[in-house]
Amino acid sequence: MDYVFGPGRNHLFVPGPVNIPESVLRAMNRNNEDYRSPAIPALTKALIEDVKKIFKTTSGTPFLIPTTGTGAWESALTNTLSPGDRIISFLIGQFSLLWIDQQQRLKFDVDVIESDWGQGANLEVMASKLAADTSHTIKAICIVHNETATGVTNNLATVRKILDHYSHPALLLVDGVSSICALDFKMDEWGVDVALTGSQKALSLPTGIGIVCASPKALQASESAKSLRVFFDWKDYLKFYKMGTYWPYTPSIHLLYGLRAALDLIFEEGLDNVIARHGRLGKATRLAVEAWGLKNCAQKEEWFSDTVTAVVVPPYIDSSQIVKRAWQRYNLSLGLGLNKVAGKVFRIGHLGYVNELQLLGCLAGVEMILKDVGYPVKLGSGVAAACAYLQNTIPMIPSRI
Amino acid sequence: MDYVFGPGRNHLFVPGPVNIPESVLRAMNRNNEDYRSPAIPALTKALIEDVKKIFKTTSGTPFLIPTTGTGAWESALTNTLSPGDRIISFLIGQFSLLWIDQQQRLKFDVDVIESDWGQGANLEVMASKLAADTSHTIKAICIVHNETATGVTNNLATVRKILDHYSHPALLLVDGVSSICALDFKMDEWGVDVALTGSQKALSLPTGIGIVCASPKALQASESAKSLRVFFDWKDYLKFYKMGTYWPYTPSIHLLYGLRAALDLIFEEGLDNVIARHGRLGKATRLAVEAWGLKNCAQKEEWFSDTVTAVVVPPYIDSSQIVKRAWQRYNLSLGLGLNKVAGKVFRIGHLGYVNELQLLGCLAGVEMILKDVGYPVKLGSGVAAACAYLQNTIPMIPSRI
Amino acid sequence: MDYVFGPGRNHLFVPGPVNIPESVLRAMNRNNEDYRSPAIPALTKALIEDVKKIFKTTSGTPFLIPTTGTGAWESALTNTLSPGDRIISFLIGQFSLLWIDQQQRLKFDVDVIESDWGQGANLEVMASKLAADTSHTIKAICIVHNETATGVTNNLATVRKILDHYSHPALLLVDGVSSICALDFKMDEWGVDVALTGSQKALSLPTGIGIVCASPKALQASESAKSLRVFFDWKDYLKFYKMGTYWPYTPSIHLLYGLRAALDLIFEEGLDNVIARHGRLGKATRLAVEAWGLKNCAQKEEWFSDTVTAVVVPPYIDSSQIVKRAWQRYNLSLGLGLNKVAGKVFRIGHLGYVNELQLLGCLAGVEMILKDVGYPVKLGSGVAAACAYLQNTIPMIPSRI
Amino acid sequence: MDYVFGPGRNHLFVPGPVNIPESVLRAMNRNNEDYRSPAIPALTKALIEDVKKIFKTTSGTPFLIPTTGTGAWESALTNTLSPGDRIISFLIGQFSLLWIDQQQRLKFDVDVIESDWGQGANLEVMASKLAADTSHTIKAICIVHNETATGVTNNLATVRKILDHYSHPALLLVDGVSSICALDFKMDEWGVDVALTGSQKALSLPTGIGIVCASPKALQASESAKSLRVFFDWKDYLKFYKMGTYWPYTPSIHLLYGLRAALDLIFEEGLDNVIARHGRLGKATRLAVEAWGLKNCAQKEEWFSDTVTAVVVPPYIDSSQIVKRAWQRYNLSLGLGLNKVAGKVFRIGHLGYVNELQLLGCLAGVEMILKDVGYPVKLGSGVAAACAYLQNTIPMIPSRI
Repeated sequence: MDYVFGPGRNHLFVPGPVNIPESVLRAMNRNNEDYRSPAIPALTKALIEDVKKIFKTTSGTPFLIPTTGTGAWESALTNTLSPGDRIISFLIGQFSLLWIDQQQRLKFDVDVIESDWGQGANLEVMASKLAADTSHTIKAICIVHNETATGVTNNLATVRKILDHYSHPALLLVDGVSSICALDFKMDEWGVDVALTGSQKALSLPTGIGIVCASPKALQASESAKSLRVFFDWKDYLKFYKMGTYWPYTPSIHLLYGLRAALDLIFEEGLDNVIARHGRLGKATRLAVEAWGLKNCAQKEEWFSDTVTAVVVPPYIDSSQIVKRAWQRYNLSLGLGLNKVAGKVFRIGHLGYVNELQLLGCLAGVEMILKDVGYPVKLGSGVAAACAYLQNTIPMIPSRI
Repeated sequence: MDYVFGPGRNHLFVPGPVNIPESVLRAMNRNNEDYRSPAIPALTKALIEDVKKIFKTTSGTPFLIPTTGTGAWESALTNTLSPGDRIISFLIGQFSLLWIDQQQRLKFDVDVIESDWGQGANLEVMASKLAADTSHTIKAICIVHNETATGVTNNLATVRKILDHYSHPALLLVDGVSSICALDFKMDEWGVDVALTGSQKALSLPTGIGIVCASPKALQASESAKSLRVFFDWKDYLKFYKMGTYWPYTPSIHLLYGLRAALDLIFEEGLDNVIARHGRLGKATRLAVEAWGLKNCAQKEEWFSDTVTAVVVPPYIDSSQIVKRAWQRYNLSLGLGLNKVAGKVFRIGHLGYVNELQLLGCLAGVEMILKDVGYPVKLGSGVAAACAYLQNTIPMIPSRI
Repeated sequence: MDYVFGPGRNHLFVPGPVNIPESVLRAMNRNNEDYRSPAIPALTKALIEDVKKIFKTTSGTPFLIPTTGTGAWESALTNTLSPGDRIISFLIGQFSLLWIDQQQRLKFDVDVIESDWGQGANLEVMASKLAADTSHTIKAICIVHNETATGVTNNLATVRKILDHYSHPALLLVDGVSSICALDFKMDEWGVDVALTGSQKALSLPTGIGIVCASPKALQASESAKSLRVFFDWKDYLKFYKMGTYWPYTPSIHLLYGLRAALDLIFEEGLDNVIARHGRLGKATRLAVEAWGLKNCAQKEEWFSDTVTAVVVPPYIDSSQIVKRAWQRYNLSLGLGLNKVAGKVFRIGHLGYVNELQLLGCLAGVEMILKDVGYPVKLGSGVAAACAYLQNTIPMIPSRI
Repeated sequence: MDYVFGPGRNHLFVPGPVNIPESVLRAMNRNNEDYRSPAIPALTKALIEDVKKIFKTTSGTPFLIPTTGTGAWESALTNTLSPGDRIISFLIGQFSLLWIDQQQRLKFDVDVIESDWGQGANLEVMASKLAADTSHTIKAICIVHNETATGVTNNLATVRKILDHYSHPALLLVDGVSSICALDFKMDEWGVDVALTGSQKALSLPTGIGIVCASPKALQASESAKSLRVFFDWKDYLKFYKMGTYWPYTPSIHLLYGLRAALDLIFEEGLDNVIARHGRLGKATRLAVEAWGLKNCAQKEEWFSDTVTAVVVPPYIDSSQIVKRAWQRYNLSLGLGLNKVAGKVFRIGHLGYVNELQLLGCLAGVEMILKDVGYPVKLGSGVAAACAYLQNTIPMIPSRI
């Protein structure tokens, strides 16, 4: 079943699932355990405390739900809203589109604010809607922090500023799937009510935990929310939190141990150093793209994502051929362009437990592929641009000095 | 975080999560992968075909949902039923109780048929209800095949016979969490419409896949079912099945490879040999319980479970002390008595990738614990009874002869 | 290549290689590393210090040679002796025989003191030879602490007493392969000059490190020893110890990390608790053997080994059939009778990271096998005898109380 | 103990130990086994047959000795030669020097033919010595195929041609530690009598198997060789080969399973494709070195090694600072200059399970380091040169087309 793998290590540069650190693989290499023994609650308790740190919250309550990002979305929505509730949601790419689809199927009254793919959320339109909503019919703002399909990062601080400006009580629900643990995310400071991510993104675990963090206001909303839910219901978790046994149903013991190891790595590096590393990787990638003479799908610098770069190819090239070629010839996994940008962009994911030299190997590969598919790239140009920046900015590894 | 472990291997005899075979651990020891590469659909396609075999179905459609048994329940219900639908559900122990709780919270009109804990589903009452339901207001029968809390196995063949007798079109939804892959389960023959299990049970994987298998009739029902759902919606899966990419959202690549290895083991042993092995383990356990002078919580032989035995302790003993002692002194994990039978029973799980000598070590441990807590057991008696049976019945290992 | 494995976990009760703890497997699950980076010397330095503790020495110098027990023997001999040197060596079973064979092939003048297989080293003969050797022609005493073939433990304290009594300067070279880390071993107190073991024995690692510990007197002897050697030469190690880089050639990085994890487990349990556990396992096994009406190959209690029990079968039974049956029917690995005791004994190894319930599963299996091969054992008898003892002696697991 | 590791994956480019494929790590992730069960001989038998293929021999006999390359050297020498035997040995770098040191300490009469470090073996001097040796006092020619310290590959075909030219019966003993499985090695065609390698080199395993392959002529020589040996003695192996149990002492079961997986990978890729891949990696590295304006330590193209490149730095730079910086800032492991070339060269190992993009990441890193230490490199230049070559030569991955 592994026959499709080529020689050497697969270069995994999709924007998730991402490379898993060895120490995380080690931590998960174990037999099952009785999750009702005293060991698992003790492990869980510490995880819940530590997970707050990656959300930069002290008042939030995390839930480690055995699900994916899609399930985490559903948990955020159904615990805080009732069918028919009016919500604002931004359509800026494939993942915000999918979330909106979920919102509509769960029967919320979704007020979609659409932008061109490559632009960020249109906060001016949001502002005018909030201004007009003096009766507070808008119950929630749903926004992706980082749209993985276009490599666009939204400005959550501004979202909060606008909400505060109009003293609007709408809940702020944020998809942080491709941001949390990689981009700076300040749940408390930004007044985020529900933030969520998935284990297979910047946390660098296998898929399987949807991490949802709820503010006190969100918890309060969950008491009256009428959306039907059981598996995703926070109430069951809270009941078992109080009992000290933590789990209303069987967790993945393996992912709990893996999460422990992943958090240990992040804290050892320092969360802000992790974020700074992603800053370097994003910038280096963009410098390479520029050197190749190609455009970033994200149209303005303020939206540039440090976790994924969607690269626009010339019209005479089909970007899916680039992704195919990467896989078939270079053992390199890149992200496809999705939906509206299918064939037009390919994506380089630079998030999770990855370092500069890994990225440079990827960039060198992309240069060769560009040439393969007929784009007149100057080989070495992107790597040179990235190196010029990185050589000035990579810090020493503290433990090795 | 592993400090609570004693010397030597933990003896894991809870009725799930169960012991993971080494070959499964090996298969999961890998980096993440791009689930949109050609490798994962190829892997998934074969898994879906092979999973049918453990349900003994050719017409069913399996869904490998990244969730737990609780999520699998929700998927079974919300895809086939609409809020307000009348369903029959049997309350015979803690897990059927929890499922009923879910059914009620999802706003179905649940007609609960209750039995004493230790008895099987009362099929006579069901029969009379079906007989009375000439207008077919009953949309589904919900039943656990094996109630994990009491060690009671229900007779699904009879359920089908009764439904057929009354030509009743109700869907038959079966929780096979602690039965499928261990007890004989004949989805097609018994006309089961939705059957489900969890990866951490007899399949011997970590928690994280809720395996749901739907009959054509169930699929048809899903087209008109009005329960709101997105994460659990079969429609999204079916759409991606058709496209050949298989996944509406990120699967756990690790569990897919693990499932491949687990199925390979089962097919190598032979599914019916696996079931026969569970028959031996169940019988041996019951012979030991009898030799100890204790009672099985399951009140009649027809209900005896071959995957879990709930042992009733004398009134002067608190069964939770037995479980505690097992953990604290013998590195043995047993199951607690739950809810109505809390303190009254302890449970020995004998399912999954486990063999006779492993069970005998557990039984020897239980004997010592019984003595520890003041029960006048004759040491060796249970093991002797189990050995007398096993020595006559264990087959040779075919590959080693 | 795994096709020979039966369902469930293999019950590994040969006297080595033994069961590997999960935490050790985890520690070894890693990529290679540059052994000239600063990480490996730091790791090695701590290992060398900690390894002394399992030898109970402060003055000894350990060498972690990438070899097996056979290589460790060769290292002990060639570093301390010159061809033609007269040495005393005890022949009490297959492994002492193999060591003697090595001694002879390395051209030492071996004065063999033979005992019946099942008896310990004849220390009276040694005493008389030492008494007669006033000119100190005897350069070394070579003795196995625990003869793995017969389950016989020699009394090293007495050996030392006799040497001291005659003020004889002969070096004391001890094979502790199946004793160190399981039986009490006091290198300094007993004045052992070279002690050695293998990673796959009580340390519970894979095969691959021959651990040799040399006293200052042995180190001094190595300076003038004329046996040719390079790979096994301590001098090269000592040179690199001094340089702080530790390795004259490439070590197995995996086994170093594994050894770290193994030592951590031993120190967490407490070395003397580890030894006490082996005491319980040995005693429990012997009580079972007695209950079965069988004899221990070790003829007197003073020689009974707590790491391996060689069980004598009745003359009408071929013990190799027992081992074969264990493998073919019960997924149980027992040790064969070797050489003189081939067909006459089978061996139960009870050393390393193993606990009481694991052993009881093995003993229950042996009972069934005995019945299989026509021995009139009372099923349950051995387990009952073992349990009666263990139930009174197993301590609580400290971290779980 | 892992605290020294920086973020992201360590880039391991020392010339051994090398990167381990995931499938090999998986294969080794297992409990110990009884090596006297029928499973291990069956596994071993197939390994021995398959190992012949990587030596390109049909008449050779492989020994999988639990040792390192140093032990494999010793096994080659002591099994074929007697103390005092005259042998020719080439000194061209640190590893040939160490082998000569071993030869001298084992008391052979070593006729050293020395070259400048950076040059290959001086075969003309060998020819003249053979010409003069009409009485055949020279018993063996000892030569490293690939000197790992200088990145120099010797021409073994020519060595054989010269021996044949003089009809000289000397044995041909070859150190193939950093060549076999990466460079073309034709044991039978070149009339090599003993060839050897180590598991941690191009086979991409952990350290721990010294693989020695003996020609029929070498086996014959072993019958009369007088060097003392036991652990390394082929005779013991041959005895157990004949018995079908294969192991005179405990093998590393883990490395056997790992070797199985490693060989499977090599055969899947195709041995000649593996060799061609190393050809590409070597060439790409040399093109980068040239682009940087630096010199290869290997002085002529005929000696250029495709498994390791020793790069000469300008006199004003200390190459050990490059290696240190690589480790401390870039998580890159490079090889130090050794002995005569200490401080003058650093080494890039490009052997084992590694692909082009991994190498390009390394080369990008080296460029930045060169700049760090004050060498005026044009960033991107080496990568550009390597890419220009690779983009024209990398084949498609057959299984993915």
